[in-house]
Amino acid sequence: MEKVISQAVISRLPRYLRYLGDLKEQGVERISSQELSKLMKVTASQIRQDFNNFGGFGQQGYGYNVEFLYGEIAKILGLTEKHNLVIIGAGNLGHAIANYMNFEKRGFIFKGIFDANPALHGKSVRNMLIQPMENLDSFIKENNIDIVVLTIPKTGAVSVAERLINTNIKAIWNFAHVDLNLPKNIQVENVHLSESLMKLSYKLSKAE
Amino acid sequence: MEKVISQAVISRLPRYLRYLGDLKEQGVERISSQELSKLMKVTASQIRQDFNNFGGFGQQGYGYNVEFLYGEIAKILGLTEKHNLVIIGAGNLGHAIANYMNFEKRGFIFKGIFDANPALHGKSVRNMLIQPMENLDSFIKENNIDIVVLTIPKTGAVSVAERLINTNIKAIWNFAHVDLNLPKNIQVENVHLSESLMKLSYKLSKAE
Repeated sequence: MEKVISQAVISRLPRYLRYLGDLKEQGVERISSQELSKLMKVTASQIRQDFNNFGGFGQQGYGYNVEFLYGEIAKILGLTEKHNLVIIGAGNLGHAIANYMNFEKRGFIFKGIFDANPALHGKSVRNMLIQPMENLDSFIKENNIDIVVLTIPKTGAVSVAERLINTNIKAIWNFAHVDLNLPKNIQVENVHLSESLMKLSYKLSKAE
Repeated sequence: MEKVISQAVISRLPRYLRYLGDLKEQGVERISSQELSKLMKVTASQIRQDFNNFGGFGQQGYGYNVEFLYGEIAKILGLTEKHNLVIIGAGNLGHAIANYMNFEKRGFIFKGIFDANPALHGKSVRNMLIQPMENLDSFIKENNIDIVVLTIPKTGAVSVAERLINTNIKAIWNFAHVDLNLPKNIQVENVHLSESLMKLSYKLSKAE
């Protein structure tokens, strides 16, 4: 039976991956939990506990093999798979995400961009023509799109999400400021920017 | 002595605020924890527990007063204060944030935007001229800037953050994909978009 890993552990994995990627680029081959702890400003025991969820990733005494550890965490996060994605919403945020080339390194392939505004059709983002929403369903089917990035306002997002339920997409990366009502076979990850700003505001008010 | 509220509770407050704001707009005056529970898809007991951290916000039997509850949560989140902010980085993400008018309703006042790229100086974002980085320190001082939004790549972000330590800013909203090394008097909230995408990728790989 597969062990259930807590959400807290999972949410820390991308940060480990980032540090290990930097170490790899610097040519570091092995690192101890103590060294990693110092670098990442978390306790060594936290690191060992986190890694023990996945079998520990190698012997503590010799430290971890950076390349191996990087590869294992990437595998756990599903980054060894390729995923085709489209962006719905060709505003500033849609542009920002389309141009964020780093995602492609992680296996997220930018396949197309859509917008309801006719004034944008024919214009392009990263050499990709902005398409009308009418093309969406057939495009998803023909290009095996897994992930839809929603960068449109909340009113549009709800109806687009309803429409997406009838396609074969597997996940929505949602930037619209609304909770989408989706069946269990469509995964969702929300980025609510204003909620993040409110958390900052809270910290500010506590500090004052 | 002030009660310490857990990070988990705090991170749920913005979502309560969003739902209460919608209810307020719809003219709803009172709501029970059961009704709110159904709407938000969290248990009524979770809602009561969360609110009990702040004294409960009124009697359960009669339900909560929506307007009062909204106001109290906004106060806890520090949203009744005004904060002046500048954006560093006039790329797509900087544009997206500058144009997100909703922030102003929450008391975050967009005061200026800066970029190191001379080709952008003289252009404007939301009627605000993009300024060179040389102007930054004096602008922060003269305009009582509290919050800096960093929407530049990680290499630039580290040195800009070092420079900001010597100003009077109180917080950084960091979109750069790096952990900033800041003194305790500067609050930070990170938005690491690729980490969010990795969490989605993890959910996808577990679902398959």
